Amino acid sequence: MVNLGIIGTGRIGKVHIKSIRTRVKDAVIKTAADPYMNEETAHFAKSMGVLHTTTDYREILEDPEIDAVLICSSTDTHATISLETIRAKKHVFCEKPVDHKVARIREVEEALKGTGLKYQVGFNRRFDHNFETMQQAVAAGKIGKPEIIKITSRDPEPPDINYVKVSGGIFLDMTIHDFDMVRFLSGCEAAQVYAQGANLVDPAIGEAGDIDTAVITLQMENGSIAVIDNCRKSVYGYDQRAEVFGSEGMVSVDNDHPSTAVLSNCDGIIGEKPLYFFLERYMDAYGKEIETFIDAIEHDKETPLTIRDGLMPVIMGLAAKKSYEEHRPVKLSELM
Amino acid sequence: MVNLGIIGTGRIGKVHIKSIRTRVKDAVIKTAADPYMNEETAHFAKSMGVLHTTTDYREILEDPEIDAVLICSSTDTHATISLETIRAKKHVFCEKPVDHKVARIREVEEALKGTGLKYQVGFNRRFDHNFETMQQAVAAGKIGKPEIIKITSRDPEPPDINYVKVSGGIFLDMTIHDFDMVRFLSGCEAAQVYAQGANLVDPAIGEAGDIDTAVITLQMENGSIAVIDNCRKSVYGYDQRAEVFGSEGMVSVDNDHPSTAVLSNCDGIIGEKPLYFFLERYMDAYGKEIETFIDAIEHDKETPLTIRDGLMPVIMGLAAKKSYEEHRPVKLSELM
Amino acid sequence: MVNLGIIGTGRIGKVHIKSIRTRVKDAVIKTAADPYMNEETAHFAKSMGVLHTTTDYREILEDPEIDAVLICSSTDTHATISLETIRAKKHVFCEKPVDHKVARIREVEEALKGTGLKYQVGFNRRFDHNFETMQQAVAAGKIGKPEIIKITSRDPEPPDINYVKVSGGIFLDMTIHDFDMVRFLSGCEAAQVYAQGANLVDPAIGEAGDIDTAVITLQMENGSIAVIDNCRKSVYGYDQRAEVFGSEGMVSVDNDHPSTAVLSNCDGIIGEKPLYFFLERYMDAYGKEIETFIDAIEHDKETPLTIRDGLMPVIMGLAAKKSYEEHRPVKLSELM
Amino acid sequence: MVNLGIIGTGRIGKVHIKSIRTRVKDAVIKTAADPYMNEETAHFAKSMGVLHTTTDYREILEDPEIDAVLICSSTDTHATISLETIRAKKHVFCEKPVDHKVARIREVEEALKGTGLKYQVGFNRRFDHNFETMQQAVAAGKIGKPEIIKITSRDPEPPDINYVKVSGGIFLDMTIHDFDMVRFLSGCEAAQVYAQGANLVDPAIGEAGDIDTAVITLQMENGSIAVIDNCRKSVYGYDQRAEVFGSEGMVSVDNDHPSTAVLSNCDGIIGEKPLYFFLERYMDAYGKEIETFIDAIEHDKETPLTIRDGLMPVIMGLAAKKSYEEHRPVKLSELM
Repeated sequence: MVNLGIIGTGRIGKVHIKSIRTRVKDAVIKTAADPYMNEETAHFAKSMGVLHTTTDYREILEDPEIDAVLICSSTDTHATISLETIRAKKHVFCEKPVDHKVARIREVEEALKGTGLKYQVGFNRRFDHNFETMQQAVAAGKIGKPEIIKITSRDPEPPDINYVKVSGGIFLDMTIHDFDMVRFLSGCEAAQVYAQGANLVDPAIGEAGDIDTAVITLQMENGSIAVIDNCRKSVYGYDQRAEVFGSEGMVSVDNDHPSTAVLSNCDGIIGEKPLYFFLERYMDAYGKEIETFIDAIEHDKETPLTIRDGLMPVIMGLAAKKSYEEHRPVKLSELM
Repeated sequence: MVNLGIIGTGRIGKVHIKSIRTRVKDAVIKTAADPYMNEETAHFAKSMGVLHTTTDYREILEDPEIDAVLICSSTDTHATISLETIRAKKHVFCEKPVDHKVARIREVEEALKGTGLKYQVGFNRRFDHNFETMQQAVAAGKIGKPEIIKITSRDPEPPDINYVKVSGGIFLDMTIHDFDMVRFLSGCEAAQVYAQGANLVDPAIGEAGDIDTAVITLQMENGSIAVIDNCRKSVYGYDQRAEVFGSEGMVSVDNDHPSTAVLSNCDGIIGEKPLYFFLERYMDAYGKEIETFIDAIEHDKETPLTIRDGLMPVIMGLAAKKSYEEHRPVKLSELM
Repeated sequence: MVNLGIIGTGRIGKVHIKSIRTRVKDAVIKTAADPYMNEETAHFAKSMGVLHTTTDYREILEDPEIDAVLICSSTDTHATISLETIRAKKHVFCEKPVDHKVARIREVEEALKGTGLKYQVGFNRRFDHNFETMQQAVAAGKIGKPEIIKITSRDPEPPDINYVKVSGGIFLDMTIHDFDMVRFLSGCEAAQVYAQGANLVDPAIGEAGDIDTAVITLQMENGSIAVIDNCRKSVYGYDQRAEVFGSEGMVSVDNDHPSTAVLSNCDGIIGEKPLYFFLERYMDAYGKEIETFIDAIEHDKETPLTIRDGLMPVIMGLAAKKSYEEHRPVKLSELM
Repeated sequence: MVNLGIIGTGRIGKVHIKSIRTRVKDAVIKTAADPYMNEETAHFAKSMGVLHTTTDYREILEDPEIDAVLICSSTDTHATISLETIRAKKHVFCEKPVDHKVARIREVEEALKGTGLKYQVGFNRRFDHNFETMQQAVAAGKIGKPEIIKITSRDPEPPDINYVKVSGGIFLDMTIHDFDMVRFLSGCEAAQVYAQGANLVDPAIGEAGDIDTAVITLQMENGSIAVIDNCRKSVYGYDQRAEVFGSEGMVSVDNDHPSTAVLSNCDGIIGEKPLYFFLERYMDAYGKEIETFIDAIEHDKETPLTIRDGLMPVIMGLAAKKSYEEHRPVKLSELM
């Protein structure tokens, strides 16, 4: 049985609390910490089997009974708390991104060296049943040598404009998941990024210095080409599809839907919209990533998403940003 | 918080123990009873939060702290234990079928009268996301007046031949779910049944006096016609589809699949087989039916599947059996 | 080059004239005859390369240059003109059904004996790309031994009530195509028919002594069970699907659609309705059946749909009618 | 009735001869010319109703009875023969591309001015039932304002290496169709092109100075972003899909398949591969483009694909080539 502490009980923290309660057998959350911990959240946490709540995350770091920490606080604290947790000799599960700065992630990488501690980054989509099956097909050689990797990722609604302002921009906030997906599906690193972007959804996003629509092309090290298309607003809901095309075939995944029900009437043949957003679509994946993290701790396995998997998508995101700003393809080596 | 006892910890009992643990917040299983309770099962039950295990189900009936009982024992005991539980003034969730004899089910119906106790029958498919969406579309009038109801239900493998011998025959063991589905989807009762059957899958099933393949046509009271096709063996896995066709359109549901991944290669465009069998396909539905039962107890609502919903499919099954044996359509009124 | 005469230039006659012009290279229509031949039809025929038009079909029978005759006149004349054409020593392509009476079809069968003439019945669906692929899969053993054959056949609109009155009833007019399909797909004959029917679409159809909705179950000679569902009105258009389920798998065909375009918006994921009716759906099949007929003449091959294939579906239709009227399953042997 | 001459009777010339014979009522091919005209081709042409064949295309230009000319000769002769035909005061249907040089196409444009002659370029895909439906949905505002346009275009096999050498390169030979599609679907012009390419299919293509795999991103003048992915070899056959995503929804089209038959067995749920290549996929479109051209002549309408529609995709192709060679996005204005 692994004793966990969880730092940050906002939306994603609550997701983890719930999925640990209902899915992860070998873990118990001893303490949940949040500077804004309120009665409602504390009540929720207790109903989900959390033994203790606090406003001070240091209680978790200092608790010798706690083996591992889930960092679900705001992005700007991820690296600092990661370093503190490592110093406290506890395993770390850190939500993405570890940081927006390469140097800060490298600090965490350095701090981990020789500790034997597990460190897992929260790219939950790798644990989705669709993308997992897809990756296994590619890795098993079912499509031969990958040649074109395509990822579509569109949100049902843009985030609050105040969030947009501190998000680090679309490439580090939204596309970062797709950069991870490209690495996961292709099994190799990107060499160069070219980003074309536009502000089409909401002028406020443009005024905040960001874009909301983008197509990003990646030259991969194995010679294949990847392309990602993103939009902050899709009226039909969360659109998360991918295809990997190779010398021997193609594997593609479609969206998930609430049901397979199809209505045929005088208007056409009408299926349901996709599951609305990431909480609906990836609930199982959130459970599976923590199960995997617990398993890595209990059986001393490598976590499937190490600090390097936290680093590379940030570099790709920074390269995309630079590409968009300078209107040219940017090599990853320029940023490393 | 509702205190539960569970009688019978075979396959379906374990399914309920697990889904109550991981899905149903307002219930706790105080005691699990099974005459063949062994160490492994007791260990499993405890790991899932069951407080106590026993070989004597009477402990449950006599425990004043237990509010409700889940009857998951063998079919021939369902009616007897239902009656005992009602006498013990506890709510009942009873796995299907309540009994193979109409008279026995009527006894339970009588015993319930005036007690105010909740009684729910375990036709889990009504809680499946696909069939639920379908029923809602029909009930909302989206297809107009139903005219043709079609249900396909095929198992990946026939059950053990020893089970077949005591199963009551395909119509009471397998088709009974589809009879419930016909009532659920059409919102009305059947008036007459005609069954055509065959022994095509395994001669041993024929030697045991049963069939393994059947097409059953039902004249419904509202004028529509329903048709069910069954087979005990489908090499591509569990096949559970339905369509309701009406004056203003059609709603249909397809199988569920492990993922949306599709492989395109020189052999064709290849999707995954359906989820293998009922445990894979209906796991969520098992959780939802118990949630609904608990909710009915806590908030004094009617259960969505009363003893009458336990009775009618048995009558339909008996009519189908008679139709098959006598080579003629059989009116339900002949059996009531 | 085969010289053709065509008798009857109504809707189906025009279809053949057009498809022979645009698809069939080795045939020319020398004469088209219709008692109601008018200027418009004559003009159409000439624009399609027909050399001569007449109101007297005997001109065709007496023309020594004409090798083969397409009988597209009203059903009640099919058998008589078939017999006259055979006497005139010309090959016959006869639209379905040959007749509604078994004895009349047997007369044609007798007349053909020893003549060496080709006789093909117009069950066009056998030449549809979907059903052809399906039949080939079954015949190639891809699904093992057939166990359940399912056919859905629904029209977008019922025919004119005056037509309904002389149509011979739904089983001989509409289901007859599906009876042919059952024989084609299963590769064997039916032994027994049970028909359940209803008048749900239009009371006028009931007043005319017919039904508009039906489910027909067939016990096949090879042990498999077939089931057909029919409705005279489907608001989403022509619905022509089938599946054959067997010991090693299932093959199914869906409707054809005007395009693969799918619209995803806030109302759902919306595909186009099926091709509207048989002219849209089976235009290619009409061409292919005549190509096959011409090929049988030119290369002295057996036609794929002989007089026996004209006879059996009529017997099945009569058995279905009797079953519906007498509320019992009817063996085909009762009608032979 | 329009009298046609056809110059060039290679593969595409034969396609037009056949589709004019079987689809286009108001046109007759008086003469077909090809310097390599042989007996087999002459025989084919005659069987398809062509009145006369010759090795000298000048016979066509000098024939006062011929109203319009189809130029199906090799690409390097398109502009010259276009100019000669215009001088001969005949309408022109010219296969794509008009030329690989902008200046040459501008010459044709100039020559057309004031003549009143029709000029149509052979971008056949605009007449495909799928893309036509898609374009109509976009033009009707069903998806709101276009934001992302995606086109997938992959061939089943690369062309002969000798053809590759003279093809003008992948962007002018293959992507040119997709550039036309981008303009057709978006209803606007591209402003800038960025091309990423690779030689992954066959080293011989690389040795010939060409690539076989590419992802091309286009900044459109209306603010939307388009992306095309190409590959010269797709083992599952011709892959021609597209999607247009906008502020109010998305419309997408899938491949066409030989049938809707799906086989379900122990290996999965298996549909047929797409129609093999462009002749199978676009046969109807070839007929429709000529029908449209004839209609434009007969009723003095503008052709839907004018010389400008011949020019712009060539500029886009040249920009893509430059982008690939110079590793940077290229503005179309650099090439105009």
